[in-house]
Amino acid sequence: MKVVLDCLGGDNAPVEMVKGALLALKENSTLKLVLCGDQEEIKKILAENGNTFSDRIEIVHAPDKIVNNESPTEAIKKKTNSSLVVAFNCMKADEEIVGLVSAGSTGAVLTGSFLKVGRIKGVSRPALSPLMPTKKNGKVLLVDCGANMDCKPINLCHFAVMGSEFMKIVCGVKNPRVALLNVGVEDKKGNELCSQVFPMLKKLDINFVGNMEARDFCSGDYDVIVTDAFAGNVLLKGAEGTFSLINSELKKSIKSNPISLLGGLLCKGAFKKLKNKFNLTNQGGSPFIGVKKIIIKSHGSSEANSIKISIFQALDMAEKNYNQAIEEAIAKMPVLEEEATVW
Amino acid sequence: MKVVLDCLGGDNAPVEMVKGALLALKENSTLKLVLCGDQEEIKKILAENGNTFSDRIEIVHAPDKIVNNESPTEAIKKKTNSSLVVAFNCMKADEEIVGLVSAGSTGAVLTGSFLKVGRIKGVSRPALSPLMPTKKNGKVLLVDCGANMDCKPINLCHFAVMGSEFMKIVCGVKNPRVALLNVGVEDKKGNELCSQVFPMLKKLDINFVGNMEARDFCSGDYDVIVTDAFAGNVLLKGAEGTFSLINSELKKSIKSNPISLLGGLLCKGAFKKLKNKFNLTNQGGSPFIGVKKIIIKSHGSSEANSIKISIFQALDMAEKNYNQAIEEAIAKMPVLEEEATVW
Repeated sequence: MKVVLDCLGGDNAPVEMVKGALLALKENSTLKLVLCGDQEEIKKILAENGNTFSDRIEIVHAPDKIVNNESPTEAIKKKTNSSLVVAFNCMKADEEIVGLVSAGSTGAVLTGSFLKVGRIKGVSRPALSPLMPTKKNGKVLLVDCGANMDCKPINLCHFAVMGSEFMKIVCGVKNPRVALLNVGVEDKKGNELCSQVFPMLKKLDINFVGNMEARDFCSGDYDVIVTDAFAGNVLLKGAEGTFSLINSELKKSIKSNPISLLGGLLCKGAFKKLKNKFNLTNQGGSPFIGVKKIIIKSHGSSEANSIKISIFQALDMAEKNYNQAIEEAIAKMPVLEEEATVW
Repeated sequence: MKVVLDCLGGDNAPVEMVKGALLALKENSTLKLVLCGDQEEIKKILAENGNTFSDRIEIVHAPDKIVNNESPTEAIKKKTNSSLVVAFNCMKADEEIVGLVSAGSTGAVLTGSFLKVGRIKGVSRPALSPLMPTKKNGKVLLVDCGANMDCKPINLCHFAVMGSEFMKIVCGVKNPRVALLNVGVEDKKGNELCSQVFPMLKKLDINFVGNMEARDFCSGDYDVIVTDAFAGNVLLKGAEGTFSLINSELKKSIKSNPISLLGGLLCKGAFKKLKNKFNLTNQGGSPFIGVKKIIIKSHGSSEANSIKISIFQALDMAEKNYNQAIEEAIAKMPVLEEEATVW
């Protein structure tokens, strides 16, 4: 299988992208990669890092870069020589390519996927869906956290179905528990969107377990959290901020007296283990689910190892035929009467 | 000044409520309190805890309790003998009472405030506004996190003005930095509500510093965070959940080997300090701002010390004439042209 890599996206591009590519090629002997970016730069980095996989690497020259503060739609339409747009075009031209990995502008990756790859039949909206750690050593999928700021109820129904299929097929969870992010667990809680979508979710052929509160996102009691991208983004980034707050306060608190300072030194290994567990730059990326090919959005600060994991995520989803499963599940959805009354 | 206390609200009612009342009376020699709840129970707890403040305590018999899973509107309308409804009625009947403290059902406290106390002139929607800790040892006010799930732009403008006044008048911050919770810091980000309210916030006579991301809620770079109650609730409870996740993971990680276990024991004091800092049950309550009297919603699991702090919060806001400041600030707001086009 072949994956295309946007080598100019992300804070550590192109060095870490190319290094990540080499790590992946080393571990998987049938993998082929297409590297899009500045040809000379890529060749130089490959040479410096002892590349022995030239027969499984294609380099496509694309010297331009899309940056974070550009309008995603403008960039995708006009920057035809950018590594990302060229990567999308490669994917379109080469049927063998199953997926794309980018650590570049989230907006541009999502817009490009939407415009250049297109939605899976029946999916109203694709969604950016990171896996987050839980207390019980498991993972929970957050759908959506980046693509759809204002959602209609049917969008959330599709998120629920796609999320449930993801946990079943990609993560091997038997009967994924799908919950609606809300302000309380009672049935009649929350905003207009929640109250409209709740009865619709109940009609779906998924294991819908009802409303959940944000404080329980990592309890391990849920496998899929369904929400709009605004609330999902607040949940994800708020958790990141809390982690950083606790980290800095813990350091201050430990340094405030010699006994705890000594204790802190002895705990160093434990702290490091914890930090690694929550380090998003080291855990691969977020799949953008609901588009016709596999798209993995890596964290902007991804390093080689994370890029490698992202490439393997794409392979894994392709091998397990995730996209076909979505299409079949969406096709089997019951007609939701509310649809007609809502828009 | 006089404050009324809902003695049957909260997980630790009535014992911790009454104990909290005694702590407050001990520290403030001019404070008077009205205690609403089961008369006999209150008298018993007062006697058991060495009450010497009988001349500053009024007990009003109210044997019924509003619980969390009741419909707030039904409960406020029908449970006329409940401690909360009686407390609201006391406040209406006795002009000397400046505020109310309750650790009971949030929905009932908010609904009761709305129906029984009423909004300050000009305020479209009151908002539940907790103070959260920041990295720089400061506090940031989150408006709203519980009252208004679906907001119109004008509601958020009022939240901004009320929040700014709160930080100025109650917390002594000179030129409070007000930010809009969004998914990015760029001007044109977010959902429909954000894009409508952004230009309106720029026209207000406040120090509006633009959009902020959830990950920076505790950076110390903002004094007021403006958002709807759905996103605010997700931010607040998501932070709670993250804290609990890190706490449990840190314990596991420390216990996993003998060296870090020893280190953990030496750090015990530092961990405790940190836990106290983030323990919401020990920090007073959240003001419900924008209603005609001071309402403080204490955490459901509040203990005596937290109730005492909540009582002092109410006194402080009343002494500083916070409500008058809101009314004046709202009256001075410019006419926001967008209002006409939005609804």
